[in-house]
Amino acid sequence: MPIDTPLTALLGIRHPIVLAPMDLVAGARLAKAVSDAGGFGILGGGYGDRAWLERETAKLGSCTAPFGIGFITWSMARQPELLDIALAASPRAIMLSFGDPKPFAPKIKAAGALLICQVQDEEMARQALEAGADILVAQGTEAGGHGASRTTLDVVPAIVDLASGRVPVAAAGGIADGRGLAAMLTLGASGVLLGTRFYASEEADGAEEAKRRICAAKSGNTVRSIIFDLSRNNVWPAPFTGRCLINDHARRWMGREVELMQHVKTVAAEYAEARATGNFDMAAVIAGEAVGLIHDIPPAGEIVGRIVGEAEQILRGQRNSFSSPL
Amino acid sequence: MPIDTPLTALLGIRHPIVLAPMDLVAGARLAKAVSDAGGFGILGGGYGDRAWLERETAKLGSCTAPFGIGFITWSMARQPELLDIALAASPRAIMLSFGDPKPFAPKIKAAGALLICQVQDEEMARQALEAGADILVAQGTEAGGHGASRTTLDVVPAIVDLASGRVPVAAAGGIADGRGLAAMLTLGASGVLLGTRFYASEEADGAEEAKRRICAAKSGNTVRSIIFDLSRNNVWPAPFTGRCLINDHARRWMGREVELMQHVKTVAAEYAEARATGNFDMAAVIAGEAVGLIHDIPPAGEIVGRIVGEAEQILRGQRNSFSSPL
Repeated sequence: MPIDTPLTALLGIRHPIVLAPMDLVAGARLAKAVSDAGGFGILGGGYGDRAWLERETAKLGSCTAPFGIGFITWSMARQPELLDIALAASPRAIMLSFGDPKPFAPKIKAAGALLICQVQDEEMARQALEAGADILVAQGTEAGGHGASRTTLDVVPAIVDLASGRVPVAAAGGIADGRGLAAMLTLGASGVLLGTRFYASEEADGAEEAKRRICAAKSGNTVRSIIFDLSRNNVWPAPFTGRCLINDHARRWMGREVELMQHVKTVAAEYAEARATGNFDMAAVIAGEAVGLIHDIPPAGEIVGRIVGEAEQILRGQRNSFSSPL
Repeated sequence: MPIDTPLTALLGIRHPIVLAPMDLVAGARLAKAVSDAGGFGILGGGYGDRAWLERETAKLGSCTAPFGIGFITWSMARQPELLDIALAASPRAIMLSFGDPKPFAPKIKAAGALLICQVQDEEMARQALEAGADILVAQGTEAGGHGASRTTLDVVPAIVDLASGRVPVAAAGGIADGRGLAAMLTLGASGVLLGTRFYASEEADGAEEAKRRICAAKSGNTVRSIIFDLSRNNVWPAPFTGRCLINDHARRWMGREVELMQHVKTVAAEYAEARATGNFDMAAVIAGEAVGLIHDIPPAGEIVGRIVGEAEQILRGQRNSFSSPL
């Protein structure tokens, strides 16, 4: 019998492990694998590509376990009809990240789906709770991809205190093993949301070379910056920046962002080609600080089992080692 | 009976809580209060002021509980005779931070003291272990004062793996309550080292106004930068920067460090006066990201008891809530 938390109860899942809705990486195959293993798979709706969303939600039709669909809120707001397509797939939850969830909450609730909101500070958490969020994801700066500056160890207790038991809080950023899950449960979270760990899985839709680089990278080999967003003319609202592996392109421009902006046309053309050809010396491999804990590319279901097994062992060991004092 | 770990066993203390040797703040009074409460007080030898060190070690003569003395390694290296003064006080341990501990290890060992080394990445940890470190402190960027860029959640498991049971690892940075202690134990650390939480204690030698500002600050109100070191002509070796509360002076110069260097003479004079007069709109209040968890200025012994009590309660609760699955 697994670890029960308010998050597992609310989502109707066996294990308190949620797949981050990674744009283009968390497709139906990966989301289904995580959900089938007892976690909660969330399809990476990302910026919102109608054809992709229709295709991947169709594939999810065969998934009998609960699953979710995630969007980048400010981007989805430009084509809100995508939310209708998502809701038509009967997800257990819609996850919204980076932007005000309020305009979309009524439709999500009316469709009978839960609203998961990812937040990076107390102000965003208050906004999400006012919009009617059923679950908060407290994301620290360790996370791969877009995020903000405060760390997981800082932001998780802050959001747990703010939620004060009204809604479950999942922790995100820097977590890739059972130690991380056990530590976040200890800190007051009801579960974890993992991106990079699932990127390096068989079912992820990322390039094999990107997965290989994640496995090879060491802790400390990532950087949070605006270099990659600048290089693809992808302007994000403040305070969000993106964490990726440090590659030649990052080394070239770190600390020279203003100069990069001055050469943005040339760089953007080169960068687009690098993305198209899978040249990851230039194109970003989006990954979080937990890369140092990731050394293989197993099936996603094996990852879920491994993390839960390790967390249970730690909690059991702790019980024994502290059993006389407690 | 309290929480036993390899750290408590090695130091001969009751609780796995260590006082960070905060320069000018962790004097004999605070170190003694932490040690008397069953933690491990470490005198803040800092940059090395002979008169201060002689006076404070003399006061520690009355401390029957084990205690330590800490130094900024690269600064102490300029006047190594301070280590003799420290060792003459019969500390249980010498703690060295920021620099190669190797030149000082033989003398420390010969005197029968343990060597505690604070590290910010794997390379520094390897250097410390080669020098014969008995205990490692893995410090994340959340920490107040000097440190580096990697987060506590990233660096603690990395250093625990590297130490692989040979020496205990204490976690530092962003920890100020029992949740933090319990989470770090869960993550594999054998204890925690706390600075900011003890700054806001009765016995700390900091200005009352600084303590008051720590209590008033919210999570997210600190910044890691080189502004304050630049402003006091205090050049640190890379990769170290300092975390302080964001005040008027920080807001004025953040992102304009090069310009600050161009005006450094004028600024340094103003800054020195601000420090002398206790004007904390300009002078730094050194503090870590855990400020959001700190709301009072109790006796240090009460802080130790509170954190241990909360951690025990969490671990006990965890045991019960997960007792059937495990």
